[in-house]
Amino acid sequence: MASRTDAQNRTDPLEELTRRFVATRRLSLDLVATLSDADASAQSMPDASPAKWHLAHTSWFFETFILRDHVPGYALFDTRYPFLFNSYYEAEGPRHARPHRGLLTRPSLDEVRIWRAHVDAALQTALPDLPASALTLVDLGIHHEQQHQELLLTDLKHLFAQNPLGPAVWETRIASEVAQFSAMKWIKGADGVAKVGHGGPGFAFDCEGPRHDALLTPHALASRPVSNGEWQEFIADGGYHTPSLWLSDGWAWVRAEDIEAPAYWDGDRQFTLSGWQDIDPAAPVTHISFFEADAFASWAGARLPTEQEWEAAAAAFDPHGGQQLDEAGPVQPAPAATDTDLQQMFGSVWEWTGSAYRPYPGFRAAPGAVGEYNGKFMSGQFVLRGGSCATPRGHLRASYRNFFYPHQRWQFTGVRLAKDL
Amino acid sequence: MASRTDAQNRTDPLEELTRRFVATRRLSLDLVATLSDADASAQSMPDASPAKWHLAHTSWFFETFILRDHVPGYALFDTRYPFLFNSYYEAEGPRHARPHRGLLTRPSLDEVRIWRAHVDAALQTALPDLPASALTLVDLGIHHEQQHQELLLTDLKHLFAQNPLGPAVWETRIASEVAQFSAMKWIKGADGVAKVGHGGPGFAFDCEGPRHDALLTPHALASRPVSNGEWQEFIADGGYHTPSLWLSDGWAWVRAEDIEAPAYWDGDRQFTLSGWQDIDPAAPVTHISFFEADAFASWAGARLPTEQEWEAAAAAFDPHGGQQLDEAGPVQPAPAATDTDLQQMFGSVWEWTGSAYRPYPGFRAAPGAVGEYNGKFMSGQFVLRGGSCATPRGHLRASYRNFFYPHQRWQFTGVRLAKDL
Amino acid sequence: MASRTDAQNRTDPLEELTRRFVATRRLSLDLVATLSDADASAQSMPDASPAKWHLAHTSWFFETFILRDHVPGYALFDTRYPFLFNSYYEAEGPRHARPHRGLLTRPSLDEVRIWRAHVDAALQTALPDLPASALTLVDLGIHHEQQHQELLLTDLKHLFAQNPLGPAVWETRIASEVAQFSAMKWIKGADGVAKVGHGGPGFAFDCEGPRHDALLTPHALASRPVSNGEWQEFIADGGYHTPSLWLSDGWAWVRAEDIEAPAYWDGDRQFTLSGWQDIDPAAPVTHISFFEADAFASWAGARLPTEQEWEAAAAAFDPHGGQQLDEAGPVQPAPAATDTDLQQMFGSVWEWTGSAYRPYPGFRAAPGAVGEYNGKFMSGQFVLRGGSCATPRGHLRASYRNFFYPHQRWQFTGVRLAKDL
Amino acid sequence: MASRTDAQNRTDPLEELTRRFVATRRLSLDLVATLSDADASAQSMPDASPAKWHLAHTSWFFETFILRDHVPGYALFDTRYPFLFNSYYEAEGPRHARPHRGLLTRPSLDEVRIWRAHVDAALQTALPDLPASALTLVDLGIHHEQQHQELLLTDLKHLFAQNPLGPAVWETRIASEVAQFSAMKWIKGADGVAKVGHGGPGFAFDCEGPRHDALLTPHALASRPVSNGEWQEFIADGGYHTPSLWLSDGWAWVRAEDIEAPAYWDGDRQFTLSGWQDIDPAAPVTHISFFEADAFASWAGARLPTEQEWEAAAAAFDPHGGQQLDEAGPVQPAPAATDTDLQQMFGSVWEWTGSAYRPYPGFRAAPGAVGEYNGKFMSGQFVLRGGSCATPRGHLRASYRNFFYPHQRWQFTGVRLAKDL
Repeated sequence: MASRTDAQNRTDPLEELTRRFVATRRLSLDLVATLSDADASAQSMPDASPAKWHLAHTSWFFETFILRDHVPGYALFDTRYPFLFNSYYEAEGPRHARPHRGLLTRPSLDEVRIWRAHVDAALQTALPDLPASALTLVDLGIHHEQQHQELLLTDLKHLFAQNPLGPAVWETRIASEVAQFSAMKWIKGADGVAKVGHGGPGFAFDCEGPRHDALLTPHALASRPVSNGEWQEFIADGGYHTPSLWLSDGWAWVRAEDIEAPAYWDGDRQFTLSGWQDIDPAAPVTHISFFEADAFASWAGARLPTEQEWEAAAAAFDPHGGQQLDEAGPVQPAPAATDTDLQQMFGSVWEWTGSAYRPYPGFRAAPGAVGEYNGKFMSGQFVLRGGSCATPRGHLRASYRNFFYPHQRWQFTGVRLAKDL
Repeated sequence: MASRTDAQNRTDPLEELTRRFVATRRLSLDLVATLSDADASAQSMPDASPAKWHLAHTSWFFETFILRDHVPGYALFDTRYPFLFNSYYEAEGPRHARPHRGLLTRPSLDEVRIWRAHVDAALQTALPDLPASALTLVDLGIHHEQQHQELLLTDLKHLFAQNPLGPAVWETRIASEVAQFSAMKWIKGADGVAKVGHGGPGFAFDCEGPRHDALLTPHALASRPVSNGEWQEFIADGGYHTPSLWLSDGWAWVRAEDIEAPAYWDGDRQFTLSGWQDIDPAAPVTHISFFEADAFASWAGARLPTEQEWEAAAAAFDPHGGQQLDEAGPVQPAPAATDTDLQQMFGSVWEWTGSAYRPYPGFRAAPGAVGEYNGKFMSGQFVLRGGSCATPRGHLRASYRNFFYPHQRWQFTGVRLAKDL
Repeated sequence: MASRTDAQNRTDPLEELTRRFVATRRLSLDLVATLSDADASAQSMPDASPAKWHLAHTSWFFETFILRDHVPGYALFDTRYPFLFNSYYEAEGPRHARPHRGLLTRPSLDEVRIWRAHVDAALQTALPDLPASALTLVDLGIHHEQQHQELLLTDLKHLFAQNPLGPAVWETRIASEVAQFSAMKWIKGADGVAKVGHGGPGFAFDCEGPRHDALLTPHALASRPVSNGEWQEFIADGGYHTPSLWLSDGWAWVRAEDIEAPAYWDGDRQFTLSGWQDIDPAAPVTHISFFEADAFASWAGARLPTEQEWEAAAAAFDPHGGQQLDEAGPVQPAPAATDTDLQQMFGSVWEWTGSAYRPYPGFRAAPGAVGEYNGKFMSGQFVLRGGSCATPRGHLRASYRNFFYPHQRWQFTGVRLAKDL
Repeated sequence: MASRTDAQNRTDPLEELTRRFVATRRLSLDLVATLSDADASAQSMPDASPAKWHLAHTSWFFETFILRDHVPGYALFDTRYPFLFNSYYEAEGPRHARPHRGLLTRPSLDEVRIWRAHVDAALQTALPDLPASALTLVDLGIHHEQQHQELLLTDLKHLFAQNPLGPAVWETRIASEVAQFSAMKWIKGADGVAKVGHGGPGFAFDCEGPRHDALLTPHALASRPVSNGEWQEFIADGGYHTPSLWLSDGWAWVRAEDIEAPAYWDGDRQFTLSGWQDIDPAAPVTHISFFEADAFASWAGARLPTEQEWEAAAAAFDPHGGQQLDEAGPVQPAPAATDTDLQQMFGSVWEWTGSAYRPYPGFRAAPGAVGEYNGKFMSGQFVLRGGSCATPRGHLRASYRNFFYPHQRWQFTGVRLAKDL
């Protein structure tokens, strides 16, 4: 698929922003088109949120930070909604407890859709007259909603996986287009001083900057992410029962949770958004925790890449390429196609790095509620890079930093090996 | 409202059974008529179940114990449903974990309605040819479904109470018809040997028998349940902050849960199935735990009645009288009307007794899955008597024993005082 | 061993009270004679207390309720001790959290012994001048301390059982004196109205009264408690894996705690206060929960006795006979000797009854702190009767009611079967 | 106090190793000289261990990795001890559960002392003939024991703080020797490429290497750690009640644990190893978590130093200088003396850095049990630098990396601010 960069260059910025706003808002609705009101309202674990909540929360973001703050005379659609649909912005006041989001059977999915339509209309009306600072927030809101689109899909997958009926969101499946399985090769990376971090122009989250120098030691990266077949070898070799391979916290997690395989695996099958499917040995392994990724790397005599190594290598690739989310429909990582260079740097699966999620040199969180976006999460989590098959195309950059706790694995997480040279 | 006993006496037993089956099955559907799919699918706590689950589980009961076991050639509507909708019958095999019932967004409410229709049709077809043993199970199934109707209402009330929007199932409200508040009087009970327990004829749960002699000591019962106004005095007098009034387990519960009032109270308002309403001082207090009932009795210088004292007194009253559930619509206990004798022995609120739920002399659980109905719950729970405004009319008897753990209070629970003479 | 009743009849009441006070206080010290300071200070679970704490708490009882309240001018030995050594008397103010008793390494065991000596001297000096109301409290204090002697032993057993070294308090062992194993027989009990409860004269805890009539149905009791050999049959027959035998709460407990045998069993060995020993098939099974006792009875086609049935039968036996605690030394139930009548009604093992621990008709708790002795524990627990090999001789009565939660089993608990006739 | 480096240069390496072994082993015994058997056996939380356990575990380390592995014919003192006193070495087999260390009242403190004497004698006898690889392990064992000396003190402090009697290990107190309180100044650090990590010669833990280049950005460090007085201003300004100052995990911790001040603070007093003392406003604040350190830095408009910034600055200072542990006696950080340069870089309080504890470039864990020493803990923890008043003098280096979870604060933890220039 062609990237959008050409199109972006041709158009008026406001027109382009409007186009992206409309497309993003529509994609969210498309993703829930086949869901029932109940499907969209249930919450399967505290880490996850109902699909309806994602639809509402993203609307709350636009209504609060643009319409309320920048459109004179705008009246909230429903004054009770901010309490329900604020996620974690302390500066925006108290809010409904996260683990109880699944108890909000009202407002209904349809009522949330009506609210969305109201917000969309108001925002499109307001757009031509918004100050630049508000347009920046519209851009942030679009990227924010793209993040929630990915979460909506992974949360939904988790919910449906709890149902013994194993329902599918989309019945059709991802067909493997790869005739020849790609062997893993080591690709040497550049060492010495590298520039990393976002330096503009264009949108980036605050945590992606400032752009700065990083020292890279001699190393190589695997040509592609670890595959399901390789993971099956790890299992067969007793990987989940060998404490010396694991971080101490990881081993405690494996034993406490009785972990024996990636999430959603059951023997030779795995649960997907298209229901239960056979595991494809050539496809990238996904739904693994940082602990598992690290143990696998130890088993393989390798290590995880640092986020700087990853970013330096990724700079050469189109962030809008690869297997990413274009429209509502089946979502599952597919095998890498060739083996001559780095494959699947963008899309397919998020790649765990060995880097703790911490601020870059000189980072300062923005003031106000929007400043809570990233900075306050900078402890205890690890950085993932490169996006996944569930990341909306157009959302990624080489400098993009995702982050999760080391035990979490309901995202489309995978691993690319690295080694010292 | 006239009781059904006259009608029952006039009709053919099979015809009457069929009529009750149809009416009961229809009432369940009526109760959920205003619910959305999401409303019917959510679970607000492990003690509660989704409305949809109640609809499905009661169908499972008929399909399993009558159609599957007694109708040759009957094929299950869906072979995956027993795993989902068995509640606690160990003899019926493994089942979906109770705390995860709210994650079953499929089958949908409509699919469950279709299953119900299928089961109803099959059962009505089969009824004329069923053996007597199966007819007994149909009768059990009707009473079983009536129990779940009450649970459906109390579970739904708990769910809606978690929603900051405070939705109402029915917008109309219970109007108080009492001009004059009824003062509490002490009514002397009979002492000496009393016959208690069900001795037939007619249906009763196994735990209600065998009928046996009980020794009653001289005592009196309060003419009516404790009112909201009296409970407000208890609160004002520091009842929730005076450890000497409480059982040790009760005091630990009060402190751990930060209990300050009956469930659903918020200052002068209480949450009802018709949304938030003013507390009526004359109405019976409801949604109190055994611990609270016992502490109130201590505060009042009284005690709880034993279940034998209650039953001996109740034998003189029509179990189908009083404020009970006749149809879908507002449900909330109303004040007692007069003060010349015992009031509200049946309906209004379940009355906590001081009797632990234990087997009667000579009790033996029935063999097989149906034998799990009551006997296995006979530890740690206390007996409640008399039914509530949410109990379907026709379901109660003087010998009827309900039971809950002493901290539970999401049922329409109340308390009638007793004292030694 | 001869009972003390003859001696009691011959002596002056004050002299006898003094003698019992001295003997009881000395026995407590004898029980800890072989313990290190650390042994006496550790707490192995919230239900248990350190031996040192028992020594201190019983002294606190005498110092508080007799010396402080009834001896003018008495100054507390250490004003900080009441906070540390009050157990659960809300009326006596705040206190150190029970689960943290094992963190009180100070005062030391020796310091507690010095406190004891101080309290003993003061109380013996005061005794001749105490009013009758205070003498009653001394008597209560003696019985209170006897209860704690038994707890001290069972808490110590639990502590030492956690130590992989398996230390013994006393190296010598209980030798079985029984040449011939006693077969279990059914002994018919009296039915109809029986008098139960304490009616005086002599000491009893408040919960043992008032004396009252109870109706007994036709029944028989087993001639002796269930033996280890019989319990091994229950295990071999899959008793711990057959849900239909268990109460619902019991089955949940068995699965959650992975229960496979009585506490302290490990294959053919069991842990005792004399270290690890072979299990004697002829000895009464002990360290079983109510849930296990009830499941065994179901498996055996029997039931548990009611406390009234037990008491009516026990009235014919000497409560000071049988295997009870006479002095510091090995403690473990021994086999029953003969089979011609009821055996081991007193001593050996506490017998779970099927009776929930609730107040007798007309029971009212005493006012003040001492009134917290029993009444506030009357929910959720079951009655045990007859004492054990760890109960100090002289402490028991036919009306004696012990009580524990249905999952607890670190006391010397056993079971005698009953059946309906 | 003079450092030991001169002495080290003058002596024979084996002689010096022996001297350090003897001195280290003796200091451990000195630290527990005033403890009772019970004091030494109790465990106040899962993070802490009994003093006796530290004495035993350090002996186990020498007995296992030197005597057992390198001295032919050596027989274990007690074959049951490895199970009891292995800490976390998976390669050394199963072990007693950490949270239950306080239940090991046997072996007694004296028995552990006898074991120590046995191990010490055997090791001193063996030393002259040990191969170099074993001598390296002796050196590791000494450093290992020094780490446990610090833990012994902090664990003991935590235990005694739980006791309402507030016992003191040492009655004497640290007198402040500072006439003039030192104002905080900013000291510019070097930027550009810096060498960090241990490059030899001499002992270091594996995680301190390999030595490598790090890029430092322009920055300044505070001349001394944050003081108690400054922390009191943070409290007075609502620091513990301002969510915007906190990391998300930190805010959750503050609310869940109801944190209002550093550990061991109670109003104007703080608990120390010398009992309760007045808080000295000039002394470094201690017993703060990473979360608190980070929130304080946010409040102060500063940030935490990176571990590389700290190490580059510390290279100019004597790691054996400052307030460190020389002998058994009072331990509490004292105020900084002057203000002309960086103060208290070594000793006084461990300084939280902003660096997650992760491997240096090229780090590989050693094979075998000893390889479990550090590497497996490299997730979720943060690096602390510089040692404390409880760190045995001689143990520290500029490259020394300590690490704890961000909520932990029972060590002598403090914070030095940094800022970007």
